[in-house]
Amino acid sequence: MAADGPSDALARLADERVDHRFKGLPPDADGLTVGELAAQRRNLFTGGFTTPVLALSAERLEHNLRLMETYTERHGLAFAPHGKTSMAPQLFRRQIDRGAWGITLAVPHQVRVARAFGIRRIFLANEVVDGPALRWMSAELDADPEVRIVCYVDSVRGVEQMDAALAGAARPLDVVVELAAGDEARTGVRTEKEAMEVADAVARTRTLRLVGVAGYEGEVPQATPERVRAWLRRLVALAAALDGSGRFAGAEVGEIIVSAGGSAWFDTVAEVFAELPELSRPVLKLLRSGAYVSHDDGHYRRLTPFNRIPEEGALEPAFRLWAQVVSRPSATQAFVNAGKRDAAHDLDLPTAQVVRPLDGTGERPATGVAVTALSDQHAWLRTEPGAGPEVGDWVGLGLSHPCTSFDKWPLIPVAEADGTVVDYVRTFF
Amino acid sequence: MAADGPSDALARLADERVDHRFKGLPPDADGLTVGELAAQRRNLFTGGFTTPVLALSAERLEHNLRLMETYTERHGLAFAPHGKTSMAPQLFRRQIDRGAWGITLAVPHQVRVARAFGIRRIFLANEVVDGPALRWMSAELDADPEVRIVCYVDSVRGVEQMDAALAGAARPLDVVVELAAGDEARTGVRTEKEAMEVADAVARTRTLRLVGVAGYEGEVPQATPERVRAWLRRLVALAAALDGSGRFAGAEVGEIIVSAGGSAWFDTVAEVFAELPELSRPVLKLLRSGAYVSHDDGHYRRLTPFNRIPEEGALEPAFRLWAQVVSRPSATQAFVNAGKRDAAHDLDLPTAQVVRPLDGTGERPATGVAVTALSDQHAWLRTEPGAGPEVGDWVGLGLSHPCTSFDKWPLIPVAEADGTVVDYVRTFF
Repeated sequence: MAADGPSDALARLADERVDHRFKGLPPDADGLTVGELAAQRRNLFTGGFTTPVLALSAERLEHNLRLMETYTERHGLAFAPHGKTSMAPQLFRRQIDRGAWGITLAVPHQVRVARAFGIRRIFLANEVVDGPALRWMSAELDADPEVRIVCYVDSVRGVEQMDAALAGAARPLDVVVELAAGDEARTGVRTEKEAMEVADAVARTRTLRLVGVAGYEGEVPQATPERVRAWLRRLVALAAALDGSGRFAGAEVGEIIVSAGGSAWFDTVAEVFAELPELSRPVLKLLRSGAYVSHDDGHYRRLTPFNRIPEEGALEPAFRLWAQVVSRPSATQAFVNAGKRDAAHDLDLPTAQVVRPLDGTGERPATGVAVTALSDQHAWLRTEPGAGPEVGDWVGLGLSHPCTSFDKWPLIPVAEADGTVVDYVRTFF
Repeated sequence: MAADGPSDALARLADERVDHRFKGLPPDADGLTVGELAAQRRNLFTGGFTTPVLALSAERLEHNLRLMETYTERHGLAFAPHGKTSMAPQLFRRQIDRGAWGITLAVPHQVRVARAFGIRRIFLANEVVDGPALRWMSAELDADPEVRIVCYVDSVRGVEQMDAALAGAARPLDVVVELAAGDEARTGVRTEKEAMEVADAVARTRTLRLVGVAGYEGEVPQATPERVRAWLRRLVALAAALDGSGRFAGAEVGEIIVSAGGSAWFDTVAEVFAELPELSRPVLKLLRSGAYVSHDDGHYRRLTPFNRIPEEGALEPAFRLWAQVVSRPSATQAFVNAGKRDAAHDLDLPTAQVVRPLDGTGERPATGVAVTALSDQHAWLRTEPGAGPEVGDWVGLGLSHPCTSFDKWPLIPVAEADGTVVDYVRTFF
């Protein structure tokens, strides 16, 4: 199998049976394979799908994948999109086919999913001190010389635990020192001095190999472009200091990794990474943005760097959650059958975007319709006089936060603009 | 197959392969069947499980199942525990084995899961106007005379849509009129007059059969025992009024269903349902509480009726989420590797309960450790001086809201008090 080449496991996803595991799918497709159902090219609105059903836009997904490929190429960035967002091996594959260096993940379980689908370059953007997980990762490295896993370190104690867990490994595990985005920020060393101490602890092991630095500018407190820029310059300077003091030297390191970049500040990352001084080895400037793949209608619509750089393009929200009005108990209230089990609700409530009357008269904007609350299995709508919708109508909802949208749907129809479902995306959470 | 008898599908769950689909499980169990892994009786803490991992307590689960069996028997209530909480067919089976009349569910997709595992009496506590879903339910009724599905109606328009979708059904679908818990409450008719109109609309169809009334006292605004009692008396009076006006008469109805009861007010439901006047037919007083099966360490710990009636017993929180400290960047901060993807976060944050140091010195209370925030894949801990925990330690977290805890874990180890994992519960969301 070629590095990150197509995997049999990926092909076998089309052989899974459509059944009770997958909400929203047509009951009369029960027993078909996913591939057979896709070949039927059913319509999302008339093809027997049940509500609620989350759909991805085929065109917008493709647009977003292409836009970030172009963006990272233009700015000389390597790209390891954060796979925790979708946990969808089919999307991992499309990201890699569009030039991604590899896939970023957050916890070892997610690495297992990626490895099961043949992903070979994995940036595990987190500390890992879990013995069984480390031994499993080590076995993956030892079994295939083309597999590469890079993870974070931010404490001497953690390094020592990793070393103990990895005793007997044939190949070292690559690590990068994580620099915290501030004193009250999340994980990562608080000071350059600690970074040096952690680097030295790594050097004392035979099981770990220091290959760079990383951090997450999304946690910079009270973030402004200036503050994010200042922190990114600290990160870049840390890489230079570790390099200048010979701390990447001992370990046959072919390139030095410098990584940052969520979905709110990748323009600033591109800007500061462009300033990187020459180091002793080539530098892999690794961006990790993940939310772009579906984008959203809330949090990331507000925060996307493309709002600051419209000349470079615009992401398009690719999710729409379709729910059906089951109750219209008063002139101002309506209830649809999608709730916390179906929609992201951690950053914002869903927003009502369009109404599709049951009578087939087509889609209209959901003017005067607002989502005011979510129950486990209902959304509460407040409606202005004359706004509708009526019992039976479908309401298309926009979502905020891709990470908590994907994780509620194990199999997601991908529909073209006219409703034709052309593919199904499987997720593993 | 006997009514609600054991299903082959349930037995086949033990034949599923342990693999990348199931987070938290031991990587070295990959390829074993779930049944084989269970037979190994591994220890949760030393048996190769990876963090984070959610565990159910075997003893507490059994205690809770037994307590609600006893409670409902003592109060003459039939019981259809809400299955949306767990969506775990193995637990549905144990609930039915302990005398439950059937299983309550919230949306047709959940009915599909229950039917796939042989559940025959289903109380679908929601309005359903989805054509493909209604036709599928009708086909289930027509295929097996022992299958019974009851769902809600609250509008004439909804009744007409259901009737249109069900044209051609051999057996009618049973429906109950839902009475809202207040003018600003969720679904359900607002007035008795509307209830009569909806009942009359049902009577005009040949596809629906009116069998009772239902509602959800958990939505009574500014609930107090007095307000909940008052609303439950309205519900009971509505049943009597529909019966007195002959609206259950035309349809060969063997018993009249009167249903209420979430997990916060079942004592008041029992009290008011005990006052039910004699109706023209036997009454099935159907309680639907679901959260009791795991109970919790937050929302339902505060709200459980057993706080008011300690002489009748006490539920025990059966979940514990085990996460590992991956970073300890300052004297007051620690980060564990479980976040929004792993823990309920809609009603309360998780609470730190116990610490298990990596050195195997055993469990201690997590005194001085507080969860202050969740990221997607991290929990933020605030620690008092000297409280620990250190990098590598496991932290046992208590959760709030069973419904949004179960739905993050497709396969949940069930562990005895000493950590021996004796079973695995599969969920379908």
